Amino acid sequence: MSKNEKMVQAITSRSEDFTRWYTDICLRSELCSYSSVRGCIILRPYGYAIWELITGELDRRFKDTGHQNVMMPLFIPESMLQKEKDHVEGFAPEVAWVTHGGEEPLTERLCVRPTSETLFCDHYAEIIESWRDLPKLYNQWVSVVRWEKTTRPFLRTREFFWQEGHTAHATKEEAVKETLDMLDLYAEFYENALAIPVLRGLKSESEKFAGAVNTYTVEAMMHDGKALQAGTTHYLGDGFAKAFNIQFTDKDNELRHVHQTSWGISSRSIGGLIMVHGDDDGLVLPPAVAPYQVVVIPVAQHKEGVLPAAQALADSLKEAGYRVLLDDSDRMPGWKFSEHEMKGVPVRLEIGPRDIQEGRCVAVTRDNRQKTDIPLDQILDQLPPILQGLHDRILDKARKSLESRIYPLDSWEAFVDTMANKPGFILAAWCGSEDCEAKVKEETTASSRCLAKQELDGHEVCVVCGQKAKHMVYWGKAY
Amino acid sequence: MSKNEKMVQAITSRSEDFTRWYTDICLRSELCSYSSVRGCIILRPYGYAIWELITGELDRRFKDTGHQNVMMPLFIPESMLQKEKDHVEGFAPEVAWVTHGGEEPLTERLCVRPTSETLFCDHYAEIIESWRDLPKLYNQWVSVVRWEKTTRPFLRTREFFWQEGHTAHATKEEAVKETLDMLDLYAEFYENALAIPVLRGLKSESEKFAGAVNTYTVEAMMHDGKALQAGTTHYLGDGFAKAFNIQFTDKDNELRHVHQTSWGISSRSIGGLIMVHGDDDGLVLPPAVAPYQVVVIPVAQHKEGVLPAAQALADSLKEAGYRVLLDDSDRMPGWKFSEHEMKGVPVRLEIGPRDIQEGRCVAVTRDNRQKTDIPLDQILDQLPPILQGLHDRILDKARKSLESRIYPLDSWEAFVDTMANKPGFILAAWCGSEDCEAKVKEETTASSRCLAKQELDGHEVCVVCGQKAKHMVYWGKAY
Repeated sequence: MSKNEKMVQAITSRSEDFTRWYTDICLRSELCSYSSVRGCIILRPYGYAIWELITGELDRRFKDTGHQNVMMPLFIPESMLQKEKDHVEGFAPEVAWVTHGGEEPLTERLCVRPTSETLFCDHYAEIIESWRDLPKLYNQWVSVVRWEKTTRPFLRTREFFWQEGHTAHATKEEAVKETLDMLDLYAEFYENALAIPVLRGLKSESEKFAGAVNTYTVEAMMHDGKALQAGTTHYLGDGFAKAFNIQFTDKDNELRHVHQTSWGISSRSIGGLIMVHGDDDGLVLPPAVAPYQVVVIPVAQHKEGVLPAAQALADSLKEAGYRVLLDDSDRMPGWKFSEHEMKGVPVRLEIGPRDIQEGRCVAVTRDNRQKTDIPLDQILDQLPPILQGLHDRILDKARKSLESRIYPLDSWEAFVDTMANKPGFILAAWCGSEDCEAKVKEETTASSRCLAKQELDGHEVCVVCGQKAKHMVYWGKAY
Repeated sequence: MSKNEKMVQAITSRSEDFTRWYTDICLRSELCSYSSVRGCIILRPYGYAIWELITGELDRRFKDTGHQNVMMPLFIPESMLQKEKDHVEGFAPEVAWVTHGGEEPLTERLCVRPTSETLFCDHYAEIIESWRDLPKLYNQWVSVVRWEKTTRPFLRTREFFWQEGHTAHATKEEAVKETLDMLDLYAEFYENALAIPVLRGLKSESEKFAGAVNTYTVEAMMHDGKALQAGTTHYLGDGFAKAFNIQFTDKDNELRHVHQTSWGISSRSIGGLIMVHGDDDGLVLPPAVAPYQVVVIPVAQHKEGVLPAAQALADSLKEAGYRVLLDDSDRMPGWKFSEHEMKGVPVRLEIGPRDIQEGRCVAVTRDNRQKTDIPLDQILDQLPPILQGLHDRILDKARKSLESRIYPLDSWEAFVDTMANKPGFILAAWCGSEDCEAKVKEETTASSRCLAKQELDGHEVCVVCGQKAKHMVYWGKAY
């Protein structure tokens, strides 16, 4: 069996084994490979192309909102990591340590950045002097390293790819606003670029970022009902500023510490794309981040005129700015259909001798296999609504899937039973104690995903302990 | 003195101290900062923006020639680095070693990639089976780490940013062609994007990449007459393929090893931009990689109508796709002129009350301070030739500077004297022995930069030893 035939072998179905289905898609769609470095993956051209499109979508949004890209070093000296107490406690157990440069032992160990708050703070202390220097709205696109014990492609790997925003502001109000603005930007990006609806809200104390005052999160629901923490924004207060001595002279000539934020979205968003939209035939990609939005497949391509017509069709779409693949390989159309369905290409355009004669092609949308005849001279008018329609349908489907599986509950018995038997999120009241969170984790493996905005009305007591409730919380099992 | 005033302090002149002039530009133009991690720099927004534009220019060229981006892990297991003997000998002495993950010592040390041939080979062995899988034309954009003893911003840092292309081919001929095609692509990029003319040619055995059969280079001449190795391409033969067992079934059903190439351009190209085009007032940037191609400066901006007119001018240029900065800060125009000259913005557009009255603005080009009155309604027609003119002039100037300082020489005395007293390259015949190269290095600190294409005619003997010559070589002191 040739390599190309292996490509279109059936993948495990979701109902049979969701975990294996996920791994099958990652490997057979050629998104990634396992590497010889344990816990690290290789992003193959198709997977990296998706990541490039994700970074493009986010980067444009960051720049439009006044953020600037920079690049900090890969390494953090041990003494620098230790400056903020909560931060080092959170990260030190899972960092990779560089101890030697060439043959020489280093005088101070360097960790490979697990996140770069400390590096940004060190730089900010250097460059911020006056209120005129604020705000600083920086971001960087890098990989970071966390020495995880168990790993899965995209979802949890020792090295992963992300952006980390780090901002410094003159006031608490501005920094809190930035934290919430970036949360909204993340939610908008997920809906409009990835067609993934998210819940957004505050993390509980026990789930927040090491060193933050507050952590906000966008949480998506996967096909199996589990949660994916899809992006977080942190209001850091002035704790880092005090630890790193980041002060500025304010308009009133007083020295003040800056207020800071940080925020990140990582390559695990690709895992979200797979597990929200994918089906038993493979990936389903929203057009904004599909490496190829359209694949043109000649039918009976050996017949005169077919290949030139397919080529002309592909060229006209490329010309118009679409990402287009012309698959003129020597395989049967059926094999090609399966391969590009597996890879989640949003629209397939078939063109054969009869189509050419009648001046049309046939468009097939990936999500619902809807076929539409399109006159060749109308393709540029008809393609945009077809692509938008696909985006809207998969977003709508994902939203229904999310909304229909949020279970408002009042009793602990129902909580345990639902977590065991009905995949999804539970919306239930919580007293605010970490003991209750711990009990939920121990007895159901679920965790608090985020605080809901809803008022408490009608839910007076904590679903776990029966004491007076403080917040409505979304609970779920998480990746 | 405020931060902004510090910005426009005069920099050291090139004739006074070229090294300090270089550092002044790096820091005062805010291209980079020193970091607390020894030997690593921080790319600040302005410096990183140049790097983003450089990567954009190159990436487009790579994709247009069929290359695909991927991402390999950051780490290389020690045993993997050791597989190709010459390669490990070249790199092991200068790699950073990770020995611990969290609290645990690793069972095998990992080095932080100094270059990724071994990782690509490991992956290629996994995914290449048949001639149908070839060629593989991969590239990645990453940072790499080499534990250098002495460092200088952009030119030599322990972490630096680059692209590394790694390709696998069915035949030697194809791989050699790729090696030379990428060399040509690099030369074309340097001329058309960075306005830097380069010499191109083969490296001598002693200067080639560890593990390569042949290394080709593009070499640029800096303002001080020294050489900058600005990019290299390597024909790797089948040595790595044999070490990593990368075999494919050819059309004739025989198993064969692939032939490979690798090639890279790094962030030291930014150092080249500074040292080729910069003058005593600061940077001079070619428009293709200038973060702002145009700065609009309102004159007497407190007067009615000035700011709106400046804004409208800036907006119309942005609309047309230019990168434009409107400097409406509350500083005097003279300060602004100096700052943006320091930062190398190609064109300054001044607009004041009288200009507005007469429906024009004044364009000043950075390299020659040429002033041109431009009617506002003609700005979109007149700006492109002004930008192109700047590119052409600085390229032409750099070419003359290069060509006028290549000294064809026949005698060793003249060689030593010229290297000591006349900055530039020497074109002289060489017998091919490493002893003669070593003698040149020892007595003049210069090295062979690359073999010249010229025939030997008239240069029968090696300039060093007087034995029969084999090649014409460009010699120079290098960064």
